[in-house]
Amino acid sequence: MRNPDNVFHLAIPCRDLDEAYDFYVTRLGCKLARRYNDRITLDFFGDQVVCHLSDQWDRDVTMYPRHFGVTFKDKQSYDNLLKLAKMRDIPFFQEPTHRFQGLVEEHETFFLIDPSNNLLEFKYYFDDRMMY
Amino acid sequence: MRNPDNVFHLAIPCRDLDEAYDFYVTRLGCKLARRYNDRITLDFFGDQVVCHLSDQWDRDVTMYPRHFGVTFKDKQSYDNLLKLAKMRDIPFFQEPTHRFQGLVEEHETFFLIDPSNNLLEFKYYFDDRMMY
Amino acid sequence: MRNPDNVFHLAIPCRDLDEAYDFYVTRLGCKLARRYNDRITLDFFGDQVVCHLSDQWDRDVTMYPRHFGVTFKDKQSYDNLLKLAKMRDIPFFQEPTHRFQGLVEEHETFFLIDPSNNLLEFKYYFDDRMMY
Amino acid sequence: MRNPDNVFHLAIPCRDLDEAYDFYVTRLGCKLARRYNDRITLDFFGDQVVCHLSDQWDRDVTMYPRHFGVTFKDKQSYDNLLKLAKMRDIPFFQEPTHRFQGLVEEHETFFLIDPSNNLLEFKYYFDDRMMY
Amino acid sequence: MRNPDNVFHLAIPCRDLDEAYDFYVTRLGCKLARRYNDRITLDFFGDQVVCHLSDQWDRDVTMYPRHFGVTFKDKQSYDNLLKLAKMRDIPFFQEPTHRFQGLVEEHETFFLIDPSNNLLEFKYYFDDRMMY
Amino acid sequence: MRNPDNVFHLAIPCRDLDEAYDFYVTRLGCKLARRYNDRITLDFFGDQVVCHLSDQWDRDVTMYPRHFGVTFKDKQSYDNLLKLAKMRDIPFFQEPTHRFQGLVEEHETFFLIDPSNNLLEFKYYFDDRMMY
Amino acid sequence: MRNPDNVFHLAIPCRDLDEAYDFYVTRLGCKLARRYNDRITLDFFGDQVVCHLSDQWDRDVTMYPRHFGVTFKDKQSYDNLLKLAKMRDIPFFQEPTHRFQGLVEEHETFFLIDPSNNLLEFKYYFDDRMMY
Amino acid sequence: MRNPDNVFHLAIPCRDLDEAYDFYVTRLGCKLARRYNDRITLDFFGDQVVCHLSDQWDRDVTMYPRHFGVTFKDKQSYDNLLKLAKMRDIPFFQEPTHRFQGLVEEHETFFLIDPSNNLLEFKYYFDDRMMY
Repeated sequence: MRNPDNVFHLAIPCRDLDEAYDFYVTRLGCKLARRYNDRITLDFFGDQVVCHLSDQWDRDVTMYPRHFGVTFKDKQSYDNLLKLAKMRDIPFFQEPTHRFQGLVEEHETFFLIDPSNNLLEFKYYFDDRMMY
Repeated sequence: MRNPDNVFHLAIPCRDLDEAYDFYVTRLGCKLARRYNDRITLDFFGDQVVCHLSDQWDRDVTMYPRHFGVTFKDKQSYDNLLKLAKMRDIPFFQEPTHRFQGLVEEHETFFLIDPSNNLLEFKYYFDDRMMY
Repeated sequence: MRNPDNVFHLAIPCRDLDEAYDFYVTRLGCKLARRYNDRITLDFFGDQVVCHLSDQWDRDVTMYPRHFGVTFKDKQSYDNLLKLAKMRDIPFFQEPTHRFQGLVEEHETFFLIDPSNNLLEFKYYFDDRMMY
Repeated sequence: MRNPDNVFHLAIPCRDLDEAYDFYVTRLGCKLARRYNDRITLDFFGDQVVCHLSDQWDRDVTMYPRHFGVTFKDKQSYDNLLKLAKMRDIPFFQEPTHRFQGLVEEHETFFLIDPSNNLLEFKYYFDDRMMY
Repeated sequence: MRNPDNVFHLAIPCRDLDEAYDFYVTRLGCKLARRYNDRITLDFFGDQVVCHLSDQWDRDVTMYPRHFGVTFKDKQSYDNLLKLAKMRDIPFFQEPTHRFQGLVEEHETFFLIDPSNNLLEFKYYFDDRMMY
Repeated sequence: MRNPDNVFHLAIPCRDLDEAYDFYVTRLGCKLARRYNDRITLDFFGDQVVCHLSDQWDRDVTMYPRHFGVTFKDKQSYDNLLKLAKMRDIPFFQEPTHRFQGLVEEHETFFLIDPSNNLLEFKYYFDDRMMY
Repeated sequence: MRNPDNVFHLAIPCRDLDEAYDFYVTRLGCKLARRYNDRITLDFFGDQVVCHLSDQWDRDVTMYPRHFGVTFKDKQSYDNLLKLAKMRDIPFFQEPTHRFQGLVEEHETFFLIDPSNNLLEFKYYFDDRMMY
Repeated sequence: MRNPDNVFHLAIPCRDLDEAYDFYVTRLGCKLARRYNDRITLDFFGDQVVCHLSDQWDRDVTMYPRHFGVTFKDKQSYDNLLKLAKMRDIPFFQEPTHRFQGLVEEHETFFLIDPSNNLLEFKYYFDDRMMY
């Protein structure tokens, strides 16, 4: 179990702050913590994601090596998010997939893509020891 | 407070897995969860960081827009990590800095750099509501 | 997750302390913390509600903009309270309703009314990220 | 201790959503959860406050019987918020006060006022059993 | 929710320490914390019960006004204990009973009797708000 | 650590319900959960104490073998309660005492007496493993 | 409930560190914390196991008196581990067994054996009070 | 942080159950959970240690490779236990030692020895990340 008092911190590029706000707050349901001229800071599922206005966003999107997201302990949380993504037409980079079937690492996963081509992965493992 | 059961997931590039292992496990004191031919997965301060073998690591390092790390609730944890980084000669991208003095956002921060030029930021805020 | 050590504090008008005691403690099952000549303080589902003796209670009751209550994480808690309200004949301002069906914000809700015309709303969201 | 999974829910009037956003998010440091045409929903110190656009805001402000806020278990949290309020020039309805000195109910308290004349009280009790 | 760090403390009479040890530790499955010449101290379901050697034990047993025990949040814990009591032939003072059916205070309860005629009650409420 | 979800349950005699209410709620600061004709139920420091109207209250008071109370993990809670007892003139059965000095079982303790001659003990151990 | 902040510490012999790494990390899914010339330290289901390079490993393996492992509160965790052991061909010292059927101590258990003949037991009790 | 619901399980040899009881319960202050003809089970600082009657206890005692104990997060717990061991004349196998001074792994440690020559180590790390 991780320490509930600390916060993971991730800074990512975004090409437009309003776009980022629309994607993360209005659609994905994250909470806006702060807005500055050059960035917005988000409470992203309990951790902090900062979208920095920048021209260094990826023009070519590949699944590896860069992406980020949440691995849920609870299947319901994973399903709720998947339902939200579909209902609100958030673009999928990869549809929900069942990976490593028959192995201990078996999990469900899907990838979303934000307006600045950042990839978000959300996962649920059948054996929660595999979350790491 | 974030949910202690979930795990933040971050995938980053690394040019050499042994280098990454040495940096994250041997020096930074993270725990190795799994090792595959093309990646290692880490218990990074309670969350998951995956180092993917890749040629897409940054040749030019800039503080923005990409970096990641932990904001500690407890000053002692921040100080312990800073001491570890110095004792074990982990390279600093930016020395410990006191930012936004006199503002509510006042915090201490330092940046480390891993062998694949990924930047890690660790922070401590005097007002913990600013962690987001 | 909110901090279990802190307490939300709400002060509301009441036209008669005995009436308020009867409504909140005897019927709704809240705990009486303190009683003074001009107010009673309650442990209201873990937070604090203070009923101040006052003539400023609402003569005209409207659902908006003022009401308060609890959003339960657990469906059972919502159902238990609904059952209690019916069994003990607590007056409903609005019967149990299923709102925003088909949307992510889908939730169940009902409104009670206290003897001083304060409105209490209790909710259960199918996606707990929508509790905020 | 209250249940960390549930959320207290409070709906209040506001005469202008941008004003409310500026007061609660930009200045008080609450997180914006959702914005609609007629309301904004906030993560207010872990609970939910909803500002409803309405003409029913109080023209005459009195401390009683209506106000809301947080009683902090930890003195540091109280002090941090007081410092934030001063640094960011948030208007006080009542300056920090030491009440009931010499009694068990002894506590520190201050009142802020939002742009729609809603009063916010923040408290710290020396004996935490008096938080209710 | 009660504070998990504190311990409720109850001192009761017992006419024989070996008898008490046999009842509480060997049969009821409580943990022995300390044994002195004149008393044993027990970890009784997480709280502390001290059996004092004494002649003041009750010759006449009545359900009221004195008894003690645990109200379980979780039905499984109640059922497990009931099963243990039956399997190990612990004497019942009152068989498992379903009380207040149709009321909010509805609960299941049974009473055990220790060798010094102390009565133990264990309960499970269908609405956990009624545990107090 | 005990389970925060369960509740210790203690039933004691009281000769007068108003007296009991005055002692436990008004003076000792416990919360009233329910009041019936023949008993009151209390949230007593997070556990449940039920005062049953009864003629079987003790005419002769002795410290052993019957008393109940709380052992606090935190010294501040012990001190706060002691201060409350003095400020509100709650009768002491035994003044604050430092017991077993020089032994591991060293602790501070005081005894209060309620209007029906029930004895309440509150303790603080220097080594918290001795709380049991 | 045990204290989540402390760590149980167990030191055991191992005849080869690579073998131990392979068994505990690669197959059993424990996390590697540190590796030295003469030992590896593991995050073993949240506690610490240290494998010391040593010639004192057991040549004759008997179930008693020495073995170690985890008793899971949750049946799913027990089942997940059993599934992992089978899928990854971890050698069983004793196949999954249902012990003490019809008694309160009823539980499921299996024994694994590591390359240095250390025995690992994993258990699930139907009555969680029997975990001790 | 480890899962507070699970229990680490360790079985060790002991040459005499009364001796073991005296050492672990009466002197070290562990709680006795169960006693059988051939073993006693203990709540050992929140985890389970089982002392099996056996002739396979170590005649020659060496610090490595076998010992077990607890690493405390909190310095006070370490100091309390050290004080207890001295006050109650529990035999030390190794006096309190300060190891790895100047390194991140710096910690305090002492070793006790039980009547069957099992070694117990208790530790406190200055940087709690080194507990694993």
